[in-house]
Amino acid sequence: MKKILGTSLLFLGLTAFGQTKEDSVQFAKISTEILNNGKAYTELRDLTKNIGHRLSGSEAYEKSVQWAAQKLRDAGADRVWLQDVMVPVWVRGKESLQIRTANGKWKSLKMLSLGNSEGTGGKDVSGEILMVRSMQEYDKLTPEQVKDKIVFFNYPFSQSFVETFKGYSDASKYRTTAASLTAKKGGKFAIIRSLSSAFDDVPHTGAMRYGDDKKIPAVAIGSTTADALAELLQNGKVTAKLNSSCGMKGEKRSHSVIGEITGKKDSQVILVGGHLDSWDVGEGAHDDGAGIVQSIEVLRTFKKLAIPNNHTIRVVCFANEENGVKGGIQYGKTAKENNEKHLFAIETDAGGFSPRGVSLEMDDARRKQIQGWAKLFLPYGVYDFTGTFSGTDLYPLHDMGVPTAELVPDSQRYFDIHHTEEDTFEKVNRRELLMGAGTLTQMVYIIDNNW
Amino acid sequence: MKKILGTSLLFLGLTAFGQTKEDSVQFAKISTEILNNGKAYTELRDLTKNIGHRLSGSEAYEKSVQWAAQKLRDAGADRVWLQDVMVPVWVRGKESLQIRTANGKWKSLKMLSLGNSEGTGGKDVSGEILMVRSMQEYDKLTPEQVKDKIVFFNYPFSQSFVETFKGYSDASKYRTTAASLTAKKGGKFAIIRSLSSAFDDVPHTGAMRYGDDKKIPAVAIGSTTADALAELLQNGKVTAKLNSSCGMKGEKRSHSVIGEITGKKDSQVILVGGHLDSWDVGEGAHDDGAGIVQSIEVLRTFKKLAIPNNHTIRVVCFANEENGVKGGIQYGKTAKENNEKHLFAIETDAGGFSPRGVSLEMDDARRKQIQGWAKLFLPYGVYDFTGTFSGTDLYPLHDMGVPTAELVPDSQRYFDIHHTEEDTFEKVNRRELLMGAGTLTQMVYIIDNNW
Repeated sequence: MKKILGTSLLFLGLTAFGQTKEDSVQFAKISTEILNNGKAYTELRDLTKNIGHRLSGSEAYEKSVQWAAQKLRDAGADRVWLQDVMVPVWVRGKESLQIRTANGKWKSLKMLSLGNSEGTGGKDVSGEILMVRSMQEYDKLTPEQVKDKIVFFNYPFSQSFVETFKGYSDASKYRTTAASLTAKKGGKFAIIRSLSSAFDDVPHTGAMRYGDDKKIPAVAIGSTTADALAELLQNGKVTAKLNSSCGMKGEKRSHSVIGEITGKKDSQVILVGGHLDSWDVGEGAHDDGAGIVQSIEVLRTFKKLAIPNNHTIRVVCFANEENGVKGGIQYGKTAKENNEKHLFAIETDAGGFSPRGVSLEMDDARRKQIQGWAKLFLPYGVYDFTGTFSGTDLYPLHDMGVPTAELVPDSQRYFDIHHTEEDTFEKVNRRELLMGAGTLTQMVYIIDNNW
Repeated sequence: MKKILGTSLLFLGLTAFGQTKEDSVQFAKISTEILNNGKAYTELRDLTKNIGHRLSGSEAYEKSVQWAAQKLRDAGADRVWLQDVMVPVWVRGKESLQIRTANGKWKSLKMLSLGNSEGTGGKDVSGEILMVRSMQEYDKLTPEQVKDKIVFFNYPFSQSFVETFKGYSDASKYRTTAASLTAKKGGKFAIIRSLSSAFDDVPHTGAMRYGDDKKIPAVAIGSTTADALAELLQNGKVTAKLNSSCGMKGEKRSHSVIGEITGKKDSQVILVGGHLDSWDVGEGAHDDGAGIVQSIEVLRTFKKLAIPNNHTIRVVCFANEENGVKGGIQYGKTAKENNEKHLFAIETDAGGFSPRGVSLEMDDARRKQIQGWAKLFLPYGVYDFTGTFSGTDLYPLHDMGVPTAELVPDSQRYFDIHHTEEDTFEKVNRRELLMGAGTLTQMVYIIDNNW
């Protein structure tokens, strides 16, 4: 069933129903194969322990490009290639943040500069800390109040949302805009409370953006450090001193990695992917090593089980999702230039946790058709098809009219470790990771057979 | 609505529907309160780090009895008491397992005696290892073949089941019966491959049982040790030597801990509980410290939010679930003697992971009524009400006709660490644990308002 638009929903329902038995057998084969013989976990160990974190523009990233190409060949791809893409080169360099109370000595705080942030050129920059608890509070401050100050945005990650992505989304403007807002009113640099669901001393990095204002630094501190600093500020003035040689160092030619198995019936593409780059701390295990090895697992499973794929199944390991999305943008551009038809694209970039659903960003007819297959997924703990977003790297495709989607794993643990030193292989559970790979493979299978 | 049996299902459906709005507001309040102010996680840290593992009959267990009573008082219980119960006293003592190939030296294996197993009286017991891969294979062996041998039951935990409890259930007979089966055919002791979903070197203990045969020892080894031993056995004979002073040391008076808030309308009991005892390794964090602190959280939340409870809400911290279920049996017996009416009882003993459902062991009418409330739970990731089992400690109540249930958390990680040194506080995620406490509180609330 190639053409779905305009087909009545009743017909869609019947089709889905009619295929249930055969499909449920194939779903079970896929799950059993992956849970027993899946390679995602051992490959993730290899990626995280032998290459480690891999920020765009780094040597480690380029190693991971060769690694991914080889893994795609090993998995049985008919064709593997690198897609050129220019990426920004941001370098952390040395960084330190110290504080001092009126009568105290300088004390170092555990911190991370935010990604893309400029530094202090290796010089000390200091000033009095001014704490705000929210944007609204900051908006009320005059430039006179902020001038030469260090603004500390102590906005807590909301614990109230069941899905932690909502808490992340709620707090993320503090990370992206703290520096430019501080610069606008003449502040020297910004400190933010990390976007963290945990109550620990782990700072979280992540992308920030500059506007037209002066490019001043922005750094993050962990939750407990933020609480301790807030307490100090209640008792008197606190001075902060930052020394950082972080900064953007131009651009560099890099690559996304692509592998595919050719469609038996046509060359229309079903895409499954994640991003190969990570932040420059930890090991980029959940974010998004997990998505990379899960995507490769999809291809491997099709080959291993000899599932005849009607359409081309393509794995894309996107470059530079974290600080530029240049890989995703280049991919969309190239697809357009080459007039490639994409039937469906799904990304996995929310951690290698137990899957709970698939979020669907597409027209109602296709969306309802996929929701009609929900009962096939239910035995695998996948029940939630209500989300309406899709992977960051897929927006260029989405804008070209391609139905896009994202795997929705359990979100409770993700923002404890996201963009931190703690995002390591040890935080990934083998079965959870494989279950996610199973859901992706099942989704690709059912789309391949119905679109 | 007190009397549900005999009421038409249509009426049940309408009732559930009519209450959805008010109930969904209360569900949200419960979730928000627990995610923001829940104490389960910090209390679990206290229990695991300051008391640690707490096998029935041990001093640590008795400390945990005082701890639980105090926590129930702190949570706002109107009444807290200890229920006397005689429990078996099993002591691990010293234990070592060594192997030697024909030309080799003795080599120690990481191992744990199974719980309730007798030892070797502190003497070396050795013999040739005979490996079987399954019960069927063992059944074919003659007593002559087994006599004086060490039988190694190398049955792997099945990875194919999506719910790991099914893999556990499938393999558990090897743990419970390996010793008695080996004794029946004249073997000296039994070694089992651990009931583990992980591929690591962590041995898992857990209860075994003796029949009428000679009480010979049974020990467990981790997955990778089992694989290595199997490989050695392919290349020739291997001798094993066990020295163990494990054994059962009679009985002891101990206690379950009970706390309750009195019903505003009547004294019928809604029970929520877990088991306070653990195995004598690790910290008993997921099994079942998590269930204890979650159950106490239910009571705390009712008090904190001043939810008027129609019926008595009772938290039971059962003694001796792991190696005798004496706490559960005594509780049922006492309830019968005192002619106490239990409306509903739910246990949480499957780990402090993200909740996915509630398993219901009760008549169809009540079951369908609860399933009719499913949409209230869905925003909290709780969608599965298809299970038909309930907590081990609740079977005596179930046998008396009480509708019983169990919280169903995500099962992917549980059997990696179950009954091992790895079942520590660090393996528990704060939000996952609190989400489970939320589900329990919501379930108690909705039952309290409808039964």
